[in-house]
Amino acid sequence: MKSLITGGAGCIGSDLAEALVRRGDEVLVVDNLSSGKREHVEALLAKPNFEFREGDILNAHFVGEAMQGVDMVWHLAANPDVKFSPGDPTNRDLEQNTIATYAVLEAMRRTGIKKIAFSSTSAVYGPSSRQPIPEDAPARPISLYGASKLGSEGLITAFHGMFGMQAWIFRFANIVGSKVRKKGGTVIGDFIKRLSDDPHQLLILGDGKQAKSYLLSEECVEAMLLVTQHATAPVNIFNLGCNDSLSVTAIADLVVEAMGLSGVQYTFTGGEGGWPGDVPRFTLDVSLVNKLGWKARRTSREAVAEAIRSVIAARTTH
Amino acid sequence: MKSLITGGAGCIGSDLAEALVRRGDEVLVVDNLSSGKREHVEALLAKPNFEFREGDILNAHFVGEAMQGVDMVWHLAANPDVKFSPGDPTNRDLEQNTIATYAVLEAMRRTGIKKIAFSSTSAVYGPSSRQPIPEDAPARPISLYGASKLGSEGLITAFHGMFGMQAWIFRFANIVGSKVRKKGGTVIGDFIKRLSDDPHQLLILGDGKQAKSYLLSEECVEAMLLVTQHATAPVNIFNLGCNDSLSVTAIADLVVEAMGLSGVQYTFTGGEGGWPGDVPRFTLDVSLVNKLGWKARRTSREAVAEAIRSVIAARTTH
Repeated sequence: MKSLITGGAGCIGSDLAEALVRRGDEVLVVDNLSSGKREHVEALLAKPNFEFREGDILNAHFVGEAMQGVDMVWHLAANPDVKFSPGDPTNRDLEQNTIATYAVLEAMRRTGIKKIAFSSTSAVYGPSSRQPIPEDAPARPISLYGASKLGSEGLITAFHGMFGMQAWIFRFANIVGSKVRKKGGTVIGDFIKRLSDDPHQLLILGDGKQAKSYLLSEECVEAMLLVTQHATAPVNIFNLGCNDSLSVTAIADLVVEAMGLSGVQYTFTGGEGGWPGDVPRFTLDVSLVNKLGWKARRTSREAVAEAIRSVIAARTTH
Repeated sequence: MKSLITGGAGCIGSDLAEALVRRGDEVLVVDNLSSGKREHVEALLAKPNFEFREGDILNAHFVGEAMQGVDMVWHLAANPDVKFSPGDPTNRDLEQNTIATYAVLEAMRRTGIKKIAFSSTSAVYGPSSRQPIPEDAPARPISLYGASKLGSEGLITAFHGMFGMQAWIFRFANIVGSKVRKKGGTVIGDFIKRLSDDPHQLLILGDGKQAKSYLLSEECVEAMLLVTQHATAPVNIFNLGCNDSLSVTAIADLVVEAMGLSGVQYTFTGGEGGWPGDVPRFTLDVSLVNKLGWKARRTSREAVAEAIRSVIAARTTH
């Protein structure tokens, strides 16, 4: 079994690469290192069943070459930054997510590869009236990030319908772990960095009451492996997360505690959402993946606490 | 009120242009005439409140100029051809629908225009397990056309969420009328042309049992005007069609009858769908628009019969 992971030097991609190498797959990781890091896959380079190639999947020649001999594509390459700041280009997600997904699918079609797993997002739902949100809730994204992932999902189901591909689409909760990407980091890395710079105060986006579902990257990877093995429909769409949520202020408290700080003054930018397009509060219905035999071992709070510990530990050793 | 219609020289766009001119709007139509025709708006050119500009919305300068002074955009420009034939480029819908929609939204954002009506499609649903299909059914398109319209919808809801736009998204049934586009025509124009070339036999795509919902273009335009006036949510998504369906073979029978032919031999390409990505059978739940006060005056059969009569009449007079 030869597996190609796009974005395989990213936080989740490199955890997936490690798991697939351990499973015995022949693994090729491609990554343009725009947000991923070479160090994330450094330890795998010595393995005989692992290969890394730096390059961009929007380069048709590069991605075509990467497809040779591949049985299954794990398409994780994306602009990972959900946040949008005024002045950011509005075509970033369209280019790096939707159009990049098309490039991967088209290269698969030309090469005759039929299986694709895809890292989508719970942001495709937008502020759903159904909570916890099940997979068959309507997708009405309110962020460019969510829109670009929904556009990607549509392309995948179309390539299924027209060219017979089989697909596993994972709508991720907020995935956290020990790794910190070059840019577009999570709230955890952001808080740790801010508090290292100034341990007396912390700026929190929004009103701090935003509450989301969190999952550890290594557990996310376990779920992806299990679902791709046991879900056999032509198109399989699964929420991946746990069934609770944690507020941003609670995360700040956990970071402050883990860093051994006290008396930190929180200031809030205000407003319900942390940024334009932020869905301030949601929980995911994960009963579908639970029924398949996978369940998050940690609550959102436990997952976040674990990620905080490992990010701090990694900072100390580097 | 100044209205910009992209794709306004198309079959539906030009009917919409006529209705908006009649309503008293100042109307600017832009169209690259790739599938639309100048003759569709010829009669409007004499009106003082109508202007036509030939150009491509993928040209940022052109579309930016077109936005000046506009209050509302009716974005109908698209590759209108739902059909996919082996050998067709797979990026056509992505470029002309999703990316073109982004170009329109971005030009609106830069100019500060807040209102957009959009011609989406019932093809976004794919082969839904819910029949008739309501607006909150999950969208799982199986065609590149449907995928590209879903990607466009996501961009529109994102531009709503991030930049405060108000949107009316119309998921059209099969829209038919007296006009025939340059390419990407409907089954009616296709059958009439084939039977004019050879009145003894007719090739029907699929098994002929595909059954879809049909709506006359002029009725579709009435619904769009009513919905944009009376639906006031930030994002308004409406199926537009009637609540029955008509089979392809029944359409062939109606064309044969209207052309005064008899003894026509039908041959079928076979298979459930007419082409890769075709959803062979569906009906739309149109109760939402019905509740708003609009209802199709014709059944699918009556709409198709009317369209056949007017296409034949138009051919005779030209």
